[in-house]
Amino acid sequence: MMRTRPLKVALLGCGVVGSEVARIMTTHADDLAARIGAPVELAGVAVRRTGKAREGIDPALVTTDATALVKRGDIDVVVEVIGGIEPARTLITTAFEHGASVVSANKALLAQDGAALHAAAEANGKDLYYEAAVAGAIPLIRPLRESLAGDKVNRVLGIVNGTTNFILDKMDSTGAGYQEALDEATALGYAEADPTADVEGFDAAAKAAILAGIAFHTRVRLDDVYREGMTEVTAADFRSAREMGCTIKLLAICERSKDGTSVTARVHPAMIPLSHPLASVRGAYNAVFVESDAAGQLMFYGPGAGGSPTASAVLGDLVAVCRNRLSGATGPGESAYADLTVSPMGDVVTRYHISLDVADKPGVLAQVATVFAEHGVSIDTVRQQGKDGEASLVVVTHRASDASLSGTVEALRKLDTVRGVASIMRVEGE
Amino acid sequence: MMRTRPLKVALLGCGVVGSEVARIMTTHADDLAARIGAPVELAGVAVRRTGKAREGIDPALVTTDATALVKRGDIDVVVEVIGGIEPARTLITTAFEHGASVVSANKALLAQDGAALHAAAEANGKDLYYEAAVAGAIPLIRPLRESLAGDKVNRVLGIVNGTTNFILDKMDSTGAGYQEALDEATALGYAEADPTADVEGFDAAAKAAILAGIAFHTRVRLDDVYREGMTEVTAADFRSAREMGCTIKLLAICERSKDGTSVTARVHPAMIPLSHPLASVRGAYNAVFVESDAAGQLMFYGPGAGGSPTASAVLGDLVAVCRNRLSGATGPGESAYADLTVSPMGDVVTRYHISLDVADKPGVLAQVATVFAEHGVSIDTVRQQGKDGEASLVVVTHRASDASLSGTVEALRKLDTVRGVASIMRVEGE
Repeated sequence: MMRTRPLKVALLGCGVVGSEVARIMTTHADDLAARIGAPVELAGVAVRRTGKAREGIDPALVTTDATALVKRGDIDVVVEVIGGIEPARTLITTAFEHGASVVSANKALLAQDGAALHAAAEANGKDLYYEAAVAGAIPLIRPLRESLAGDKVNRVLGIVNGTTNFILDKMDSTGAGYQEALDEATALGYAEADPTADVEGFDAAAKAAILAGIAFHTRVRLDDVYREGMTEVTAADFRSAREMGCTIKLLAICERSKDGTSVTARVHPAMIPLSHPLASVRGAYNAVFVESDAAGQLMFYGPGAGGSPTASAVLGDLVAVCRNRLSGATGPGESAYADLTVSPMGDVVTRYHISLDVADKPGVLAQVATVFAEHGVSIDTVRQQGKDGEASLVVVTHRASDASLSGTVEALRKLDTVRGVASIMRVEGE
Repeated sequence: MMRTRPLKVALLGCGVVGSEVARIMTTHADDLAARIGAPVELAGVAVRRTGKAREGIDPALVTTDATALVKRGDIDVVVEVIGGIEPARTLITTAFEHGASVVSANKALLAQDGAALHAAAEANGKDLYYEAAVAGAIPLIRPLRESLAGDKVNRVLGIVNGTTNFILDKMDSTGAGYQEALDEATALGYAEADPTADVEGFDAAAKAAILAGIAFHTRVRLDDVYREGMTEVTAADFRSAREMGCTIKLLAICERSKDGTSVTARVHPAMIPLSHPLASVRGAYNAVFVESDAAGQLMFYGPGAGGSPTASAVLGDLVAVCRNRLSGATGPGESAYADLTVSPMGDVVTRYHISLDVADKPGVLAQVATVFAEHGVSIDTVRQQGKDGEASLVVVTHRASDASLSGTVEALRKLDTVRGVASIMRVEGE
């Protein structure tokens, strides 16, 4: 029962992802038609500059006027792979107003304006799908939003940025420093010329906001996500991690509080045990670990970026949205009914690994231990190493709030015997 | 915008999974209502015997007349967690005819009669969902059917039976033999008193049929799945695997042929490299590795069985089916349009690890190598070990068809110098 009038798709953006979406739409047209129940037709492609030859795309479809394209009125689905906030936001909203549903891969926009975009979709009775916005090809939005819809998610712990995982994996396996590993990532095309969005955790923070929102049925804005980059992770940190039976990963962590009434979302480097499934995620791969009441521990693993993997996620959404259009229904929209409190970083409870440079004289450990005790931070282990009148003290704490730990560190810095705080690293996944 | 008339759910079966479904429906009623857009009500529970106290379930809802329950006409969704072919099949079909959609966890039934059940669902405009039938809580059906709907899956490689993975993991980590590891699995409740369905690969074969059907948009019946159990895997096999840098897993493998026109599905023990993500799947966990054109390599990991994990999958489906009922739509049904040829095991191409007991005299290797050559099976490595007039010969082949390999082994057995074929194990995941 194949409908013959094709569904019309407008593609906004024709870079690495967009061109791959167009290519697959052409080469796999028969499969897509069979799976949707109607053919899909590329009706227009909006680009920044025309004149460039785009293999497999009819030049007559290419336009620089994206606004006119989304306003045409005969477009069924707009696929937005431009990225960034504007003009993507206005184009998507305009698309809804002119009768189209939207598939987007735009994590920055979804993290910042997800609620408004969902509202616009709902007001117009249209779909907004964005599996490609988080962890590339890895099915994650759909499993969280649908497969786990009858469960209660307590924690999402993920490696959601391939660039930083490549760098950290390189540091771990070769003993290289941050800069050396970054240079290699850049040379191999894993890091951009300006790597800020990746290495400072902005990219991962956007994904954390999206994941937390879906996992906890609560609006989590980008500003709610605590963010710490990984540019200060050193080879020495990796040596310390090894001594703990750990490695270091840049993690996005979304957690429900023990009493269930609040949630937190954060991105920072952390030590995780080598036995944890996330520890063995190599190179530029992504993986997300989900803990829920009934399902227990699930993990989703795969390529987190790249033209083809991202296109795979976009096309999966395209098929779903097209099916919805044919059946006259819409898929699940925003679910924020739980409306839990989003707590600040100070409320996060975890363990810490702290390296201190201290004077090598009697009584230092007692002083340091007193400071921890005064701030209610319980010490799990201490290791002391002397070297020529100086010494280092490595403290691993039991679970404590980030606020208590910050207070402890502040007080430690004021001690005469503490020359410096060499590193503070959270310990997760235990 | 909450609808107040509740959706009515009939539960068929109230064992380990069913009682957990009922419990979560009660304790998480508000969450389910918010996510669905209407409350769900447990309208009846069909059991084999009444009289047993069932915590949290109103005794007035319990009945032994499952047929009357599915015929009531006011049931929105029937949740079937009885298992087995009959009466489950008739009850599901009857449910469709009387206006209900169905959520099932019944792998045996889906593998045997999936096509007929899908047809019954479609004829009545109803949904048939069964995420829980494969790999428990791990979202797999939905990702394959929806997230990868715009991609082309080439291979599914999975550990889909927790009992056998527990046994093999135990053999691997302790050096135990099969019987000893099985005894421990039985004592710990991981293996049933009669472990046949698990250890002989029947359970995994049913899951392979379901996965292959969805992955390749082609009907794959249980009879199409080649099946070999893992009762003959020995401690010696694990030692051989270690020498190859491998471990042994019972794998369900669904593959598209190189030319894309045919598919195969099979279950058997196989060596896989320790570096493969499936190699580190421990205990009773399941994991499925999916390779597709655009997405590349994805892995899904989690608990493959148990009351709570299976209930999580059932409830995710329940939410989806309820949403569909509210919107008047149905989800994706059977997709078998590709209708590829399902080829027999003889057409499967892979590598083999063969251990032969041979006479320890000159010329044996030449004889053996000649047999391989005559059958067109190319040898990668040979290792010879002498011991008191006898010797063993370990041959690892390049990729060859199963038919060629079978012919080779048959011919080897006829050689005077070959005392026996100690083991034949496929090598996968390279």
